[in-house]
Amino acid sequence: MNVREQAQIAKKAALRLMTTSSRERDGALVAMADALVERTGEILAANALDMEAARGAGRPAAMLDRLSLNAARVEAMAEGLRKVAALADPIGGEDFSLKRPNGLSIGCRRVPLGVVGIIYEARPNVTADAAGLCIKSANACVLRGGREALNSNAAIVNVLTGAVSGGVFDGAIQLLCDDSREGAAEMMKLNGLIDVLIPRGGASLIKSVVQNATVPVIETGVGNCHVYVDASADIGMAADIVFNAKCSRPSVCNAMETLLVNSAVAKTALPAIAERLKAKNVELRGCERTRAILPGALPASEEDWTCEYLDYILAIKVVDSVDEAIDHINRYGTMHSESIVTADYANAERFLDRVDAAAVYVNASTRFSDGEEFGFGAEIGISTQKLHARGPMGLKALTTIKYVVRGNGQTR
Amino acid sequence: MNVREQAQIAKKAALRLMTTSSRERDGALVAMADALVERTGEILAANALDMEAARGAGRPAAMLDRLSLNAARVEAMAEGLRKVAALADPIGGEDFSLKRPNGLSIGCRRVPLGVVGIIYEARPNVTADAAGLCIKSANACVLRGGREALNSNAAIVNVLTGAVSGGVFDGAIQLLCDDSREGAAEMMKLNGLIDVLIPRGGASLIKSVVQNATVPVIETGVGNCHVYVDASADIGMAADIVFNAKCSRPSVCNAMETLLVNSAVAKTALPAIAERLKAKNVELRGCERTRAILPGALPASEEDWTCEYLDYILAIKVVDSVDEAIDHINRYGTMHSESIVTADYANAERFLDRVDAAAVYVNASTRFSDGEEFGFGAEIGISTQKLHARGPMGLKALTTIKYVVRGNGQTR
Repeated sequence: MNVREQAQIAKKAALRLMTTSSRERDGALVAMADALVERTGEILAANALDMEAARGAGRPAAMLDRLSLNAARVEAMAEGLRKVAALADPIGGEDFSLKRPNGLSIGCRRVPLGVVGIIYEARPNVTADAAGLCIKSANACVLRGGREALNSNAAIVNVLTGAVSGGVFDGAIQLLCDDSREGAAEMMKLNGLIDVLIPRGGASLIKSVVQNATVPVIETGVGNCHVYVDASADIGMAADIVFNAKCSRPSVCNAMETLLVNSAVAKTALPAIAERLKAKNVELRGCERTRAILPGALPASEEDWTCEYLDYILAIKVVDSVDEAIDHINRYGTMHSESIVTADYANAERFLDRVDAAAVYVNASTRFSDGEEFGFGAEIGISTQKLHARGPMGLKALTTIKYVVRGNGQTR
Repeated sequence: MNVREQAQIAKKAALRLMTTSSRERDGALVAMADALVERTGEILAANALDMEAARGAGRPAAMLDRLSLNAARVEAMAEGLRKVAALADPIGGEDFSLKRPNGLSIGCRRVPLGVVGIIYEARPNVTADAAGLCIKSANACVLRGGREALNSNAAIVNVLTGAVSGGVFDGAIQLLCDDSREGAAEMMKLNGLIDVLIPRGGASLIKSVVQNATVPVIETGVGNCHVYVDASADIGMAADIVFNAKCSRPSVCNAMETLLVNSAVAKTALPAIAERLKAKNVELRGCERTRAILPGALPASEEDWTCEYLDYILAIKVVDSVDEAIDHINRYGTMHSESIVTADYANAERFLDRVDAAAVYVNASTRFSDGEEFGFGAEIGISTQKLHARGPMGLKALTTIKYVVRGNGQTR
């Protein structure tokens, strides 16, 4: 089947899914979870083929780790589906309703987006995760995973769809058969069939989707996050937050990449922070003023201010005011997550008001930008655009609205 | 100045506008309104140049009408700005806030989008209207109007910006100096500078923006709207609604284009409706079963089911059930506005649940799909996409959110 045919099947399924009850959808998710566990053997056999090919092609260890499945990882996928099933239904309620002077009653009802396209890398767990979130929110999905995971993804989708076949969910989960680059390019232009595309993965994947798609896109993920240590900061708190934001998981988008320190406290704060970062051998790249205080730091170039290292590397710049910090962040940041450490009320509010980012923090680590940490229960990704969804996206990001208008013969 | 330079100025202005109070913004709008009235002479002189050129180029009468300004039209623009100033501020409130178990307080704050790009046709009133809505919502804007209106638009923007120059609003309203096609194409790809593009105009303009933009777009406007007359419909009500939906203003996107009639009432409903439509000499194009009842109707082709006539033309199809009507609408509609006329509870709910459109009506005209009619006070357009905004867009569609997180040293 070609890409368009699969999207057409998904669209038909989406029109049926619109009217499913949450009981039906949650039941489907539990059945899918059970099937994943029962049929673990099939999935691992398919994954072994992918792993063998990836090893043969000399893929890097990090990719092999993301690609590889075992019984515990399959069980984790199943557990993820059960958790999503237990969340509140995002569909069918009304954001508001109003009555007009002419008697028309207007309700703003939450409805599914329709067909959600997801383009991702060679991580088979995303297949179950994305399909589960779409089913929960009554959306059909078209999945295009990394080619290295094709056998694993096909086995997972086969198990998921097998668990609910012969009913309203038929056709709702489409894994692209055509795994060519042309297939992905075609998927990005299926206006009228795919309602939204969500790329999940690295910066180059996301950029390619943003550049090439004509279907509406939700841009996710790239995070050049900053922590600014204000003149009034508690230095111990600043060191804790910087250490956590940089080192607790450097490979993720909410990890910090650049430290900004007020010149009034740089001489005490920088050595204290550098001392903490030694535990993880973090490479420091500083401006001239930083290097005068930390002679071990390498010189930072203009490129360092824009870089998402995703590694144990930290750029450091000394600034003279909260406004200089704000300007730096608004200039070089990716509007993801930004934090100020301060004891000063006016500077805290100024930072919250003026930094243009999805999540802005006072005295907390940027690492909290996460659907689970925000209490949303599930996360589809972290939007770095301003349209439709911004920051950690819960199930609501997979919905839209429909105005439901009830009259008794009104004309205009 | 080139397109990128103007967008950069707008972006700088947007960062300043973020922190303006509604009192400042509303004051600016009133000052702009006053200036439009005071300097009407300048605007009309510039418009006369555009009109002369357009007449010389043999432009159609409808375009000349949209292009032409007079004192009353300038006063109407000013009145529009005053009305927008009087609306509630869409910025600064919180959609929700919550406290996490670790003590973090998370607020979901409404903030401006940033820089809004608007591409429109040769209608100078849109210049004041769009600029006003952007200022109200604390956004900067980059305007690209139809080339035929360049002198008029330049005069209007000159008056608007002159009314608030030397302050926080400097640079906030940018009318593209480069009015070439290449300029518009460049504008559509200014990711990082323009946060959203809204095309306002005909189907071909909108399609061109959707196809070419890499900046997020809100698709507006195209409406292939239907009225379905159910077996249980009150025929008098059906005739009133069809007449209103087709004839009250055929050139707008919420006007109906296709009538669907249940076969059980076609023999009584179709003649009654046709009789009403005679008053406006509406051309009827019917399916075979329609033509058996209304021999005067022309034969409808497949193309008629997809066509947005925007004229006194109506396609008619006889269907056998509410489900056939729903399927037809979901297949051929543009997800704009759809109405059922019925006395049957189950069919009304079925239609509301299953038709996939921005606004779905029971026993009311599709012509109500409008920001003013919905009580939103102002309208930026009617979105026919599902992302970010759907249906009539009020000021909220020009906002996004920012998570404001307050802690006291939390790490993860």
